[in-house]
Amino acid sequence: MAVQLSIGARVRKSPFFQASCKAGLAAASVYNHMYMPTSYGDPAAEYDRLINGVAMWDVAVERQVALKGPDALALARLLTPRNLDGLVIGQGKYVPICNHSGAIINDPVLLQVAEDEIWLSIADSDIQLWASAVAGTLKLDVDVYEPDVSPLAIQGPKAVDVVSDLFGEWVRELKYFGFRVTELDGIPLVVARSGWSKQGGYELYLRDFNRGDDLWAQVAEAGKPYDIGPGAPNYIERIESGLISYGADTDSRTNPFELGMDKFIALDQPHDFIGKDALIAMKKAGISRRFMGFIIDGPALAATNEDRLLISFDGENAGYVSACVYSPRVGENIGVGMVSTTPIDKGQLVTIHMADGLRSARIVPLPFL
Amino acid sequence: MAVQLSIGARVRKSPFFQASCKAGLAAASVYNHMYMPTSYGDPAAEYDRLINGVAMWDVAVERQVALKGPDALALARLLTPRNLDGLVIGQGKYVPICNHSGAIINDPVLLQVAEDEIWLSIADSDIQLWASAVAGTLKLDVDVYEPDVSPLAIQGPKAVDVVSDLFGEWVRELKYFGFRVTELDGIPLVVARSGWSKQGGYELYLRDFNRGDDLWAQVAEAGKPYDIGPGAPNYIERIESGLISYGADTDSRTNPFELGMDKFIALDQPHDFIGKDALIAMKKAGISRRFMGFIIDGPALAATNEDRLLISFDGENAGYVSACVYSPRVGENIGVGMVSTTPIDKGQLVTIHMADGLRSARIVPLPFL
Repeated sequence: MAVQLSIGARVRKSPFFQASCKAGLAAASVYNHMYMPTSYGDPAAEYDRLINGVAMWDVAVERQVALKGPDALALARLLTPRNLDGLVIGQGKYVPICNHSGAIINDPVLLQVAEDEIWLSIADSDIQLWASAVAGTLKLDVDVYEPDVSPLAIQGPKAVDVVSDLFGEWVRELKYFGFRVTELDGIPLVVARSGWSKQGGYELYLRDFNRGDDLWAQVAEAGKPYDIGPGAPNYIERIESGLISYGADTDSRTNPFELGMDKFIALDQPHDFIGKDALIAMKKAGISRRFMGFIIDGPALAATNEDRLLISFDGENAGYVSACVYSPRVGENIGVGMVSTTPIDKGQLVTIHMADGLRSARIVPLPFL
Repeated sequence: MAVQLSIGARVRKSPFFQASCKAGLAAASVYNHMYMPTSYGDPAAEYDRLINGVAMWDVAVERQVALKGPDALALARLLTPRNLDGLVIGQGKYVPICNHSGAIINDPVLLQVAEDEIWLSIADSDIQLWASAVAGTLKLDVDVYEPDVSPLAIQGPKAVDVVSDLFGEWVRELKYFGFRVTELDGIPLVVARSGWSKQGGYELYLRDFNRGDDLWAQVAEAGKPYDIGPGAPNYIERIESGLISYGADTDSRTNPFELGMDKFIALDQPHDFIGKDALIAMKKAGISRRFMGFIIDGPALAATNEDRLLISFDGENAGYVSACVYSPRVGENIGVGMVSTTPIDKGQLVTIHMADGLRSARIVPLPFL
């Protein structure tokens, strides 16, 4: 169904919002209290650019939570089960955040940008409130705030060419999640090798809201020889790549083991962190459901799903599919979701309750590609 | 500009979403990670219903944060500067919530629904994260979670007739923010005399997500004799009534004194609460800006503002107008926003930077009506 998005002062606009509109923004959502572009009206072209060329995405909604002060690292250690030993300026880390019950409440990338300053580049929940409540209650010597930082993503196999044309050959040497504090014609930036796709690419963390149009224009110009065009986090590609979408794939009880994040959960580290006791108990008890892929029978799906789809197995509720679509590259209907370990262990088909009827599906490991 | 709202599984749908769509939903936003209806396509009729008749609003986005357990009241006391002495089951209170720096981070209505259970009916920020971080860090004996509760508002001068036809004459005796736990043909509910308008009305807190269609249908049926119709929190009426919209009117530094909330900030209570030291210092220092009304010169405004509008005074930045509109009842262009105390104290005009040019405006107390 078609509903118009209300535009008003309550929801923030990205520094790239006007440029996105001029580029033909057709649909958007809201993420971290900010408008998030989702489509420029030509899904096939947007997918093709990401897979075979290069796209630019307004992902300013990846807001930063800055932890700044002598206790910045101590606070960061409390916030994530990941062991932060060996953290260095210039190399980011993916850091799941859990509550005291061990449920996941965000899955940011952490960037140490200075000796006493750490950023969390967050998914859609108010981690600023979470982190400042912890810091304030423990009277830690650290400020928690949202800095003036707005990422613009450049994604796709040709992204490296666009970004090296703009910044120099050094960008090719960055490791995944590696970053450098720099500038572009006086526009203050962080250049990071990252982005919410598996097609390769970079994120330019704009550090001055007022330079959004300038940065967009520079990237669009540098991208011309490579046929750059606008895009957004891609519904099909994220399923193919098995990327987790916090809020879509997770619920209030989802734990990191269900999401296959075991390698980021350092239960044996000497440092304390929020959720440790709960996670130790969960690890011992094992999981009863897991985030998996699905290959879904029947004709090619004509549309993406508006709602989570119920999964049943043996007549019982067995979880949900959070996103599914026809994948041109896989040549099948594919999906991701949280499913009971019973049909996984038995290697049996499950039933998915689509809007237009039941379909059977095979559970497969992620990613698809 | 017209942008379509993306509908997908990441953002939740209200239990009234399908009913809202059938009723002609035209535009929506996102609030507390849930779709929030904002228009049914006929703003004049929606305003008229609210002012002269009765309207039903899907405001399930007013999510509840439940504090349940022996320390529920102790946690609630920590969370708000308001003195909670004398709290009783059946009478809600408006409770601003501040962070450790004294900035406002939400302004919920608190409802004590049982001896050991308190709900916060929140504006758009993740107070569940805030409250559970405080509770977990202090090891309080309280669970913090989102219960299955979704308000449906019935607003307007005839709301009392609709609601008394449904529930009985006792609803007329409820005080403002008074409530009762009850049911309607087996649908579990809380009926409260409240709502985000000054036209009188009730909110039915649905306690079973699966009964959304049933409740909507019952209210629509009971409202027929009064010409009930769908609506949403109203842009014009909220300005006329001077209601605060958290997020639109506030920024990361807004304190409760700037919002005129002095009577809710009990600095001399014996109980400790978060932000107390900061608020004592602010009270002593006084404020430099205040949330006020504006009467804006020039022809009737043709549209609502998409962005905050800069206010200037004597050539200097003097704040922002967060919402403005032509009011049929006031017969003027009116607005609300945060403005420097200098022009207030001097009783002088300010300049508002509209999208199409400058206009002068007179600062006036709230509400307009």
